[in-house]
Amino acid sequence: MRLRNKPWAPEYLKENNDIVVEEASRWKGKWHDHFGNNHPLYVEIGSGKGKFVNELAEANPDINVIGLELYESVIVNGVERAVENRKPNLRFLQENAADLPQMFAAGEIDRLYINFTDPWPKKRHAKRRLTHEGFLELYREVLHREAEIHFKTDNQGLFEFSLESLSSSGAQLKNISLDLHQSEMEGNIMTEYEQKFSQKGMRIYRLEARLHHD
Amino acid sequence: MRLRNKPWAPEYLKENNDIVVEEASRWKGKWHDHFGNNHPLYVEIGSGKGKFVNELAEANPDINVIGLELYESVIVNGVERAVENRKPNLRFLQENAADLPQMFAAGEIDRLYINFTDPWPKKRHAKRRLTHEGFLELYREVLHREAEIHFKTDNQGLFEFSLESLSSSGAQLKNISLDLHQSEMEGNIMTEYEQKFSQKGMRIYRLEARLHHD
Ligand SMILES: C[S@@+](CC[C@H](N)C(=O)[O-])C[C@H]1O[C@@H](n2cnc3c(N)ncnc32)[C@H](O)[C@@H]1O
Ligand SMILES: C[S@@+](CC[C@H](N)C(=O)[O-])C[C@H]1O[C@@H](n2cnc3c(N)ncnc32)[C@H](O)[C@@H]1O
Repeated sequence: MRLRNKPWAPEYLKENNDIVVEEASRWKGKWHDHFGNNHPLYVEIGSGKGKFVNELAEANPDINVIGLELYESVIVNGVERAVENRKPNLRFLQENAADLPQMFAAGEIDRLYINFTDPWPKKRHAKRRLTHEGFLELYREVLHREAEIHFKTDNQGLFEFSLESLSSSGAQLKNISLDLHQSEMEGNIMTEYEQKFSQKGMRIYRLEARLHHD
Repeated sequence: MRLRNKPWAPEYLKENNDIVVEEASRWKGKWHDHFGNNHPLYVEIGSGKGKFVNELAEANPDINVIGLELYESVIVNGVERAVENRKPNLRFLQENAADLPQMFAAGEIDRLYINFTDPWPKKRHAKRRLTHEGFLELYREVLHREAEIHFKTDNQGLFEFSLESLSSSGAQLKNISLDLHQSEMEGNIMTEYEQKFSQKGMRIYRLEARLHHD
């Protein structure tokens, strides 16, 4: 995601701190209190410009949705959209996915979305891939026993890698699609990257995984 | 694989019973004796016209290779090729993969190849797919602890299904390729079906799996 300098971004995010939650770790173990209900909590990591989480929250008022994105200049787009069209069940965190266990208690997340995450194609950068076993161990800590990871990418190498690392972690794989837009999946919400790549005729790969076995 | 009536096939197979082993169950637990050495044993199930096993045996004189194929009229092609170009390390069995545990003792097989197996696309026929969990349980019985299954197919739906059923069985996946002929894999031996489908420009999917974890 290209970084454009947006000098107004920090100010804008502060003004909208009802949508972009500051010091997320304060709410660890208390996200139900934060949202004021007992609905399931779905989190997207690397949510980019926030198209997906905005549409997910809108389509599912009974689900609490959080978009987690590292960069101010990117997250701000999703926040603008949420300000225009307010949804009580949507929040953003400008945070690093590596810090999930500081923000969420054991079992607190009911679903984790990873969409078109950076592939880090060089082998020596494999640890940075958000589906590396190191990250999967972090997710296992914060995911509910029955929670699923929903993963989409256009990147063949990243998908191959992710299948292998999920299998190494003992994950249970489900609803794999090696060509999502030619499949029968219903209710798919497209991300920004998905729109761009599928318009170019590229295949989209998708899987669901459970890290906890019965 | 089209079935052509070959009235001479039974006779021909009998004549060459040094290559097509009759009553394979006699050799259960004794395949090392049969081959007269202690080399690893690699088995292909659904070996069809036998191109793959002939070339595998030729390229690897220190591996014992068995092609297992249900139909007389198909297996006969691979036998003809083996008669023309004799290899001490190659045998055929005209048998059903479902009967593997009658022919092989626990841990006796060091690698299992499944190449371009019938996809049985209808859901109600899923149990017939050679990567169905029912079959995987049979393979687990006869595969050595460190043995791998090497699986190739052109069929996207079958590959998706197989990833899921292998993961359900707790298999460890490795060296996945979602487009084998564009990948860097070396030493790939093409099967008849692989040649046909890849010439048409179709993608070939491949994986390796271990059913026994460390
Ligand atoms: C390639 S973009 C995809 C954005 C969006 N999910 C989509 O599908 O269109 C990946 C995003 O992940 C963010 N990101 C990368 N690593 C991250 C991390 N460790 N924690 C949070 N966000 C991260 C990047 O800043 C970038 O905005
Ligand atoms: C589609 S062909 C592929 C042949 C070859 N492996 C290739 O890649 O060219 C599948 C073969 O598997 C055989 N087959 C199917 N089910 C089998 C079973 N249960 N046991 C043994 N062979 C079987 C069929 O008779 C057929 O020859």
